[in-house]
Amino acid sequence: MNLRLVSRLLAAIAWLIGGTMAFSLPWALPAFGQTVEFEYAGFLGLLASIILCGLVGYVLRRMGQGADGTLYRKEAMAVVGLSWMLATVLGALPYLVSGTCRGIDESGEDVRMNVADCLFESQSGFSTTGATVLTKITQFDPVDPTAENCEPRISQKQLVPRCILFWRSSTHFLGGLGIIVLFVAVLGQGSAGKALMRAEMPGPSKEGSLTRMQHTAWLFAGIYVALNAVLAAILMLEGMGVFDAICHAFGAMATGGFSTYDESLGYFGRHGYNGPLIEYTVTLFMILAGTNFTLLYLVTIGKPKSLFADIEWRTYMGVILGVTALIVFFGLKHRDPGFESLASGIRYGLFQVVSIVTTTGYGTQDFDSWNSFGRGILFLLMFVGGCAGSTGGGMKVIRHILFLKIIRQEIEHSFHPTVVRPLRIGGEPIEAKDLRYNILVYFSLILVIFVFSWMFIVAVEPDITWTAGNQVTENEQSLQNKLIDSATSVAATLNNIGPGLGTVGATRNYAHFSWWTKLLFTFLMMLGRLEIFAILVLFVPSFWRDR
Amino acid sequence: MNLRLVSRLLAAIAWLIGGTMAFSLPWALPAFGQTVEFEYAGFLGLLASIILCGLVGYVLRRMGQGADGTLYRKEAMAVVGLSWMLATVLGALPYLVSGTCRGIDESGEDVRMNVADCLFESQSGFSTTGATVLTKITQFDPVDPTAENCEPRISQKQLVPRCILFWRSSTHFLGGLGIIVLFVAVLGQGSAGKALMRAEMPGPSKEGSLTRMQHTAWLFAGIYVALNAVLAAILMLEGMGVFDAICHAFGAMATGGFSTYDESLGYFGRHGYNGPLIEYTVTLFMILAGTNFTLLYLVTIGKPKSLFADIEWRTYMGVILGVTALIVFFGLKHRDPGFESLASGIRYGLFQVVSIVTTTGYGTQDFDSWNSFGRGILFLLMFVGGCAGSTGGGMKVIRHILFLKIIRQEIEHSFHPTVVRPLRIGGEPIEAKDLRYNILVYFSLILVIFVFSWMFIVAVEPDITWTAGNQVTENEQSLQNKLIDSATSVAATLNNIGPGLGTVGATRNYAHFSWWTKLLFTFLMMLGRLEIFAILVLFVPSFWRDR
Repeated sequence: MNLRLVSRLLAAIAWLIGGTMAFSLPWALPAFGQTVEFEYAGFLGLLASIILCGLVGYVLRRMGQGADGTLYRKEAMAVVGLSWMLATVLGALPYLVSGTCRGIDESGEDVRMNVADCLFESQSGFSTTGATVLTKITQFDPVDPTAENCEPRISQKQLVPRCILFWRSSTHFLGGLGIIVLFVAVLGQGSAGKALMRAEMPGPSKEGSLTRMQHTAWLFAGIYVALNAVLAAILMLEGMGVFDAICHAFGAMATGGFSTYDESLGYFGRHGYNGPLIEYTVTLFMILAGTNFTLLYLVTIGKPKSLFADIEWRTYMGVILGVTALIVFFGLKHRDPGFESLASGIRYGLFQVVSIVTTTGYGTQDFDSWNSFGRGILFLLMFVGGCAGSTGGGMKVIRHILFLKIIRQEIEHSFHPTVVRPLRIGGEPIEAKDLRYNILVYFSLILVIFVFSWMFIVAVEPDITWTAGNQVTENEQSLQNKLIDSATSVAATLNNIGPGLGTVGATRNYAHFSWWTKLLFTFLMMLGRLEIFAILVLFVPSFWRDR
Repeated sequence: MNLRLVSRLLAAIAWLIGGTMAFSLPWALPAFGQTVEFEYAGFLGLLASIILCGLVGYVLRRMGQGADGTLYRKEAMAVVGLSWMLATVLGALPYLVSGTCRGIDESGEDVRMNVADCLFESQSGFSTTGATVLTKITQFDPVDPTAENCEPRISQKQLVPRCILFWRSSTHFLGGLGIIVLFVAVLGQGSAGKALMRAEMPGPSKEGSLTRMQHTAWLFAGIYVALNAVLAAILMLEGMGVFDAICHAFGAMATGGFSTYDESLGYFGRHGYNGPLIEYTVTLFMILAGTNFTLLYLVTIGKPKSLFADIEWRTYMGVILGVTALIVFFGLKHRDPGFESLASGIRYGLFQVVSIVTTTGYGTQDFDSWNSFGRGILFLLMFVGGCAGSTGGGMKVIRHILFLKIIRQEIEHSFHPTVVRPLRIGGEPIEAKDLRYNILVYFSLILVIFVFSWMFIVAVEPDITWTAGNQVTENEQSLQNKLIDSATSVAATLNNIGPGLGTVGATRNYAHFSWWTKLLFTFLMMLGRLEIFAILVLFVPSFWRDR
């Protein structure tokens, strides 16, 4: 293991993160951040964090001095895994140093974020999960009863500094960018990676593979930044302030889900904005964010038909429309909240399905109060995820397509043992070596991680996590849901969604979990985002020992 | 497809079933069945069913007249699948023809079993599941308040005829025998089958494989029948009547779980019998029933060490002891019902763990009232199952061992792509072709079937299944559990356990489900028992079309 080379590359990551933090500083100013007064704590916390990032980068650079040699497969895996861990730790600094509060306890005291909270929030940002431990971001002025309909910056108290909130949303932006670039880097390696790649990869095909890869990476990064800018601009046109517009654009395009309000995106529909317009806009951009960026590139250069020619994208859209239809049907049948009419059913149903399938996790309705089928299908949808090569997390649509094709073939195979047919995607045979086996291994790994994490949480998390803070009559009921709630909390973090059901539902959050469970969630978010292997190998001793 | 040959073999199955039914007839006599009066309805129902079996066998035999040729793989698969379906239909006849009641409705009226009920109960018997739709088998005499401690045959009213109950338990016996014989037949075929087989297979090794297979099949059948007889004798010595002893021996040795009382095996502990003695006896025999019959044979011929040399058996015992320790620890910590002391905790905990892991499904305690971790781990345990080559259902311990070995190797493989190590069982490399792939396919199939059945039940089963018959305040709570209850009902039928959690919990049953869900359960029990493929291929059109 060429540790010097690894160290040198990690230094660059530390500086990149410190540099990005600088963009959060201006929002501490009253004029810029639309706050009432200058946010001293947030500003100083960010400043100190930037200096720390610089120092860490410097130390890593010194350790990597004189590094040379090639980046082999093992070094590349180590860089990916370690840089994500480094980002998580550095990204947690602003919360910790500024002493950000995660909420208010029963006696009215502020509760500061502890180390586990900060790591959780940072990982949730970089992994574009969007799960949060912040229970109260803003508070409406209790002396003014009409406040809820006024300009937010006047009528509400900002409990979490806006500059910190901006950093929080910036981690989404960085995480989404990182995944898009990593996808390109991974594409060049391994047979399964090539099979998942589209045939018409952008970039000059005659040049060397490294040049081509760099070209593609820049192209994808450009599309990503442009879409962020376009969405922010549209949201501003639709009435949002510049701060809210940028933060929500970051959250949507990275398929993250951090909002600047406790009510998530549902805030705008309830506080004098044009809710449906904003929600349908965000729905559209979430769909784009969950689409393979190769396809977005092809559409940009004037080949819109390539979208519909792609089997993964067709399936992705089919899942969105099909599940929405089911959710609306059962929602109307059970007269669930939000399903008072077909129009509102489609509005809330479509938004929630897109939000979950793209692994964003924004909420406009308390889907936890929907019927069992609606809740169950949303839980399963968490495992689907976006398309490969998008910012969406989860297991990816293409893996599910291949998985179901393999299963169908195996049933035929059992009575025709000699017939071997190639797997086909969109008519083309793709018989990459070990592809079938790798797909099944991936599903198995997800299953094993899910089951063990689930039982860990049910075993170690005390019952009080479910019963505290509820009405006495509700206690028994919410404890009854410990099994299903824990299952969804694992699904929601491992697949980088954010909200789950019950105690981690649309109107709740992750603040009340114990610190060891929060660290498990932090680990799960990282595992899911880096598609498991890049993280798991770091814990295998022989990975470090052997050449 | 040589349909004539298939037809001829099916005729033998029909006659075998009719012949076995004859053994249930004597229990209709008061002297024999310890009942108050002769059971006309049950007797006539059985008699009519025997005649129908004879007729069906005759017709099938006529259709198969002049059959010749070899039994190819496809014909063998067709015979296995179709004979199980035929057995289910014929086994349902006694319930249907005798007009057996499945319980009493709110107005005190008897509710007769409908066609779906009869098929469900018959399949549950043959597949050794033990899930039941009978809500009331016996009723204590309401005029005698001291009745609960008296001789059962005097103080209680028999709602389901004893001869019908005997037939119900006989289906377990036949099902267990069928699986043991099928295992031997399947062992000879396919590479994965060979890998799952133990090296020291009993039988004269120098003879041809068919002779050896027949020899082994007779040997296993002999062990099975002998163990049934021994257990029945011991239970009689421990105070049970001959009827109860035989029925409960059938239930335990087939890992079925049908009891002759509504309280399952827990009845004896509460009605003047030596509860712990009977329970520990049954626990021991359930463990034997879940052990590979090859190992039982080796122990019989004086090689007891082979038990401990076998990795699957060691793991099986490790799972039983480990999970029991966890259940007892959490049960005592949460002060669950039954865990008042360490001794009673071990008594109920061990029994329940063995009952679930061997897929028997007997109950002595309402485990549904245990803490969430206990309930969750029992749910997961449902997927483990007994050892290969036993009467236990589920996915089998050996598959889990191989599955976890594969997963561990794949993580190492991801950074050492060139190193390929063979899978080892107990130190011996077993690199049968496609074994890894087949194991993963099996897990995937179980996952797919589980997920789709789960959502089907949540979608189509009306909420009233959860809310009817409960207190008003309980309604909301039990409906909250629809997701988890449905999941466990699928796990409990697909893995041939019997009871699940909540509405299908230890003190409940399957009577209140709608008929379409009952038919789905019937299908799942069959799928699980025949390890999926033998049933699924029957629904693939090309299976019948091609040569």
